[in-house]
Amino acid sequence: MVEINYNEKQIELLLGKRKQNAEVTERDFGSDVVVAGYIKNIADLGKNMKFLTLADASGEIQLTLKKGVYVGVEDAKMLTPHTFIVAKGEACKGRAKDGREVLVKDISLLSDVVTEKIPTEMRTSLDKRLDYRWVDLRNEKHRFPLTMVSEFTRYSRDFFNENGFTEIFTPKIVGTPTEGGAEAFPVLYFDREAYLAQSPQFYKQMAICSGFDRVFEIAPVFRANPSHTTRHDTEYTSLDFEIGYITSHQDVMKAEEGMLSHVFKNIKEKYGDKIRKKFKQEIDVPKNIPQIRMEEAYEIVTKEDVDEKGSLRPSGEKAVSEHVKEAYGSDFIFITDFPYDARPFYHMKGEAMRNGKETTKSFDLIYRGVEITTGAQREHRHGKLTAQVVEKGLSTNNLKQYLDFFKYGAPPHGGIGLSPSRVVTNMLDLGNVREATMAPRDPKRLFP
Amino acid sequence: MVEINYNEKQIELLLGKRKQNAEVTERDFGSDVVVAGYIKNIADLGKNMKFLTLADASGEIQLTLKKGVYVGVEDAKMLTPHTFIVAKGEACKGRAKDGREVLVKDISLLSDVVTEKIPTEMRTSLDKRLDYRWVDLRNEKHRFPLTMVSEFTRYSRDFFNENGFTEIFTPKIVGTPTEGGAEAFPVLYFDREAYLAQSPQFYKQMAICSGFDRVFEIAPVFRANPSHTTRHDTEYTSLDFEIGYITSHQDVMKAEEGMLSHVFKNIKEKYGDKIRKKFKQEIDVPKNIPQIRMEEAYEIVTKEDVDEKGSLRPSGEKAVSEHVKEAYGSDFIFITDFPYDARPFYHMKGEAMRNGKETTKSFDLIYRGVEITTGAQREHRHGKLTAQVVEKGLSTNNLKQYLDFFKYGAPPHGGIGLSPSRVVTNMLDLGNVREATMAPRDPKRLFP
Repeated sequence: MVEINYNEKQIELLLGKRKQNAEVTERDFGSDVVVAGYIKNIADLGKNMKFLTLADASGEIQLTLKKGVYVGVEDAKMLTPHTFIVAKGEACKGRAKDGREVLVKDISLLSDVVTEKIPTEMRTSLDKRLDYRWVDLRNEKHRFPLTMVSEFTRYSRDFFNENGFTEIFTPKIVGTPTEGGAEAFPVLYFDREAYLAQSPQFYKQMAICSGFDRVFEIAPVFRANPSHTTRHDTEYTSLDFEIGYITSHQDVMKAEEGMLSHVFKNIKEKYGDKIRKKFKQEIDVPKNIPQIRMEEAYEIVTKEDVDEKGSLRPSGEKAVSEHVKEAYGSDFIFITDFPYDARPFYHMKGEAMRNGKETTKSFDLIYRGVEITTGAQREHRHGKLTAQVVEKGLSTNNLKQYLDFFKYGAPPHGGIGLSPSRVVTNMLDLGNVREATMAPRDPKRLFP
Repeated sequence: MVEINYNEKQIELLLGKRKQNAEVTERDFGSDVVVAGYIKNIADLGKNMKFLTLADASGEIQLTLKKGVYVGVEDAKMLTPHTFIVAKGEACKGRAKDGREVLVKDISLLSDVVTEKIPTEMRTSLDKRLDYRWVDLRNEKHRFPLTMVSEFTRYSRDFFNENGFTEIFTPKIVGTPTEGGAEAFPVLYFDREAYLAQSPQFYKQMAICSGFDRVFEIAPVFRANPSHTTRHDTEYTSLDFEIGYITSHQDVMKAEEGMLSHVFKNIKEKYGDKIRKKFKQEIDVPKNIPQIRMEEAYEIVTKEDVDEKGSLRPSGEKAVSEHVKEAYGSDFIFITDFPYDARPFYHMKGEAMRNGKETTKSFDLIYRGVEITTGAQREHRHGKLTAQVVEKGLSTNNLKQYLDFFKYGAPPHGGIGLSPSRVVTNMLDLGNVREATMAPRDPKRLFP
């Protein structure tokens, strides 16, 4: 009788030779391999035969425990789903779906046998699943959206690196709230009050004033938004870039399209099949994204789709998106030239609408009916910027430190902010941004 | 007479054709080019001739304003250093140090002429320079360390991507302090108190428990450390990775060495000459980094170099580093097997010292006399981990949520944390980590 136990020396020996499950291929058939992971499933055919499905980050593989090859088949009944093990055996053609199996000769525990009742299964509510997120994510379908967020940031960085951007790291504890005080979390900073940054906006612009031509940052932002929706978290990862020496907001849209094309193209190539099979979604690689001025959008939507400031409500974004999908077959649409009333003071003014309403050199990007980006050319001239602060009824005193960035000159510049989790949520049609967030934060949730 | 002014249409026309200063090469000689940037220097040779040094992120180029070619030479006396302009002219061989100049035909302002007195110059104190960081950074030597931090993270990510790591984004607002409560900043989270994460430690481990094999994160961490030193900020960017299925902390050190080798090799290739010239430093690409057990380190240092817990004080790190530099010629040294007393509860215990003192499977990496990394294999077995919480006199109740990560199994794993700014500070011998931080935070500083 062989006891399956935790044996440090044996683990060290075995793990040193470990292959990831997906790395075991036909070429290994006939040789011994070592694989490790957590048990997903056990098919117990009695004393003489057991099948284990072993999972790791790369995928699954079938372990076959067979009398005559492995002496501990009976002892293996102590194993439970979710227990982590390492196993050595001969790789061979098997009856598993993917045609590979490992005929086990040796098993060692990597930690204790899991005896706790597993709190979350397929049909558990999202809320409960989030409570036990680290168990929930062992389900590969639940983990996949996080892999997509990782791939999104990876390929966006490729684009940035190849196009002369510098990555910046800006402070998240700030002396004054970035976008007005209403939704800023207060921090006790030694003996005084500070705030968590709601966006890197001011600091991206500071970098441009500092002599960087093009900068980007992928970092957390914080919004003390008390409402609980499927679109928002109180903390999320924001991808922001800012580019100098632009001719207009058109240069910013061009850069964003370039970045998104690169990301979507690579994701489609690597994961297109999987996404089609598991999530029933086709990846549309953006190219020549259609544009529509807000003034034109008003003609497509109903009155109820427009808010009091002249911006579109979510229903309006959806209506425009459907219209564009029909007319151009595109999942993406830039809505440009938002009214000045609907944009923050630092957006540069553009050409007026036919009815005389002031606009801004700004845009939103809508993806499958949901806004995923706000972007604009910024007002970089100290005098005009100060005037816009006053026009908006804000205090030049509160914003003095920001305004000072522009006192010593600045080039024309603009940029965007985007949430990779929100893009992935729409790409995979997940229905809730929390599905694409490892440990989401909302007004009620601080754990895990 | 030509007035140099801000002309939106002309700017748009010119900037659309802009080259970065460094992109203007011999091949452009004889053709018209458009360059843009801020004026670094003006040599005024009177009515007929002026030289401007123009700077952008890529470098500098000389603009020559000469009567007969440019009609506004005299008018150009309105220009001041730091003013942003765009200029068009013929690229040609010139008398400038690098042999390139642009014989200007046209200039346009990109923002107002800077008339403010420039508050910071070369000899200004670091504190004053930080007050006006966005002007300070127009000095390329001051901006360069930030470019190095960007390059550090870029090449580390390359390594991670090529070695099967997934990038994770973990919450920075947490319900309970990560590393004990003493140095955590409190946040008012709606109606309750939360904290800023002091490290992603618990969440990296949660990711490993979730079925990821290898993860990394590059994100801000927050330490409410009231002391003001040249080594610490209250907020800094931390690079962290965690790998599963390790045989011991040796695998973690191997991964870190691989990552650092890749980063240092690329930085040396691209910037080695510049760093030698501007910072008088040679880049030592780490390879086969020597290791020394803490027990052995005790024999090199004096009693005063060791603190009451058996860890090295900064003087001790320096002494060991000098010893190793002499013996092996290496800028890097791993000190391993720290006493259990000197490490947090979650480090895995290792083989005892000869005197019976308990150790951990842990290490620090010292670079040029300064600790840049703390790493370890973690205790991943729920039972043992809980026992270590109790041994350290901590509350299993406060740590229940963390302990729960390990209740449903976990593979052996370990990882590190490292501050890219601190590495760059030592690489360039800057003397203060704030030189490698865009907008540093310390107990007194919240701006910019």
